[in-house]
Amino acid sequence: MANPVLVEAMRGDTRESAHRGAIAVLDSDGKRLVALGDIDRPVFPRSAVKLLQAIPLVESGAADRLDLDDEELAIACASHNGEPEHVAVVERMLAKAGLDVSALECGTHWPRIGKVANAIAAAGGEPNALNNNCSGKHAGFLCLACVLCGGVNLRQYANGYVAPRHPVMRAVTEALEATTGHDLRQAPRGIDGCSIPTYAIPLDRLALAFARIGTGTGLRPGHARAAARLRKAVAQQPFMAAGSDRFDTEVMEALGERVYCKVGAEAVFCASFPERGLGVAIKIDDGNTSRAAEVAMAAAIEAFVDLDDEEADLLRRLSDAPMRNWNGIEVGALRATPELRDGLNG
Amino acid sequence: MANPVLVEAMRGDTRESAHRGAIAVLDSDGKRLVALGDIDRPVFPRSAVKLLQAIPLVESGAADRLDLDDEELAIACASHNGEPEHVAVVERMLAKAGLDVSALECGTHWPRIGKVANAIAAAGGEPNALNNNCSGKHAGFLCLACVLCGGVNLRQYANGYVAPRHPVMRAVTEALEATTGHDLRQAPRGIDGCSIPTYAIPLDRLALAFARIGTGTGLRPGHARAAARLRKAVAQQPFMAAGSDRFDTEVMEALGERVYCKVGAEAVFCASFPERGLGVAIKIDDGNTSRAAEVAMAAAIEAFVDLDDEEADLLRRLSDAPMRNWNGIEVGALRATPELRDGLNG
Repeated sequence: MANPVLVEAMRGDTRESAHRGAIAVLDSDGKRLVALGDIDRPVFPRSAVKLLQAIPLVESGAADRLDLDDEELAIACASHNGEPEHVAVVERMLAKAGLDVSALECGTHWPRIGKVANAIAAAGGEPNALNNNCSGKHAGFLCLACVLCGGVNLRQYANGYVAPRHPVMRAVTEALEATTGHDLRQAPRGIDGCSIPTYAIPLDRLALAFARIGTGTGLRPGHARAAARLRKAVAQQPFMAAGSDRFDTEVMEALGERVYCKVGAEAVFCASFPERGLGVAIKIDDGNTSRAAEVAMAAAIEAFVDLDDEEADLLRRLSDAPMRNWNGIEVGALRATPELRDGLNG
Repeated sequence: MANPVLVEAMRGDTRESAHRGAIAVLDSDGKRLVALGDIDRPVFPRSAVKLLQAIPLVESGAADRLDLDDEELAIACASHNGEPEHVAVVERMLAKAGLDVSALECGTHWPRIGKVANAIAAAGGEPNALNNNCSGKHAGFLCLACVLCGGVNLRQYANGYVAPRHPVMRAVTEALEATTGHDLRQAPRGIDGCSIPTYAIPLDRLALAFARIGTGTGLRPGHARAAARLRKAVAQQPFMAAGSDRFDTEVMEALGERVYCKVGAEAVFCASFPERGLGVAIKIDDGNTSRAAEVAMAAAIEAFVDLDDEEADLLRRLSDAPMRNWNGIEVGALRATPELRDGLNG
């Protein structure tokens, strides 16, 4: 059966396009508060689980040994814009590990935000791996390698760290398995944009993991402490989590520790609402850019997080977003469907 | 009932994302060869119908009076990249009408192809209305105004030409209505990205119009002649129709007059296969970028156009497109589903 339409693009009064998808909202005991669409089908969470993948960086003691600060911990969980501020923090992190850009195995791409790419081009430059949206996550992997390598040459030890069987990636996968409670040995495996493995996991289990990182319930103590520290670091430094003109940064700048949210490629979106003890996981079926996943996430925040008037205005602008054309004329809207709103409101 | 899945994004062996949609293939007598999904629901064709909207430019005699060449006629039908070659042709066209960039009412946006935008930024520049992907269409409207204005001041006459009731837009709408055979007075109307009206039309009627422009059957003689001239101009100058790294240009460079195809915003795609006397209209439900519409169109070309081995290789690369990550590793594919291929093969 097809998933329900969660988000619609309106042109005038006519529905121009429609996004089907599924959304799970669970508490950390595994109780399902919302189950719209097929939330048992495994989906690749891609970058939405970067915080879960950064847990070993903290639990292992690497973050303490290298004295990583909130900016550095936040960017270890980030899909950032590759802006100069992001590049500087990733370089600093690599330097603490005694490494530089050449150790990164994430590959290179032009920043996706036009003005960031334009600025590089205007300066006559080209992006490098530091600009890759995943460079902070990869710097975190390399910092983790500092404690795992046991004194052998770090550069040599870390070579090939993106491979599923490398000790760094095994530690990362173990954290993902423990927090989601999902057996990843049996899960479909793919290669992510930045070359690390990605495992298909049901939305139900992803929402559970994000509930757990908000409450600590169901996690081993080291994971609970690490997750809380990472969440707080992002809440302190939300610009490091994404950057200019980005949903995650804008929402977390406004809501602080009340919402931890993280977008992933192919329209996955996960969030933790710690005050409410809830986790959210969304996959828009078509996966094509995050526009619909953002609208659905905004609607979920509206439904479950207590907001003051100003915050409510911001979230409504994100869940029922006017669309303007090249002359600034309002031509339609991208908005949550009544079906999604009704499903969220139980 | 939900439309079928026409295109799937695979990661490894697992379906990561899925695009539902509808596709109509008709001959110019209105016989339906393919009707997958709901082809009777009205959709905004957006830029996919630019050739139909350019018919009055030719039929009115404006193209002859201003001595427009193939490049200029092709760009009147284009969603171009705003590359220097495109900007030069649009400027030349406006000059023939005695106008310049200030007469364009399409608005301004940065070119969507990264390297084109980067080149503007690297030169310290900013885009203007000439770079707008619709600037050629708008230049065509202004050239049409040259013959409609009847000697009054052209600049004054053309002011506000994007409004539905302006004589320029009435002529354009009349051509759209005549070629599709669809009553637009009753159709939902929206405002397009470049501020002209867009009318929702069933895929069935769009496919019929594109069959007709290939054969001339069912069109009044002036429309048939104008459409043939525009098709031939695009076949001569396919770079003007889109530009670097674009599906439309690549396919028409390879196939010449055997395929006229045109993408539209929100994942609409129309085509004419004149040799076969067929028209195609596709709408991917989610509308979010053209990636799936391009795959579906490539599959339709494979099913209905006779291809030599080299052409077949090109089209297969477009209908079953490898996806590579930032390190160039093949991580999956974007491909036509068996359901689409079976539907196309009757």
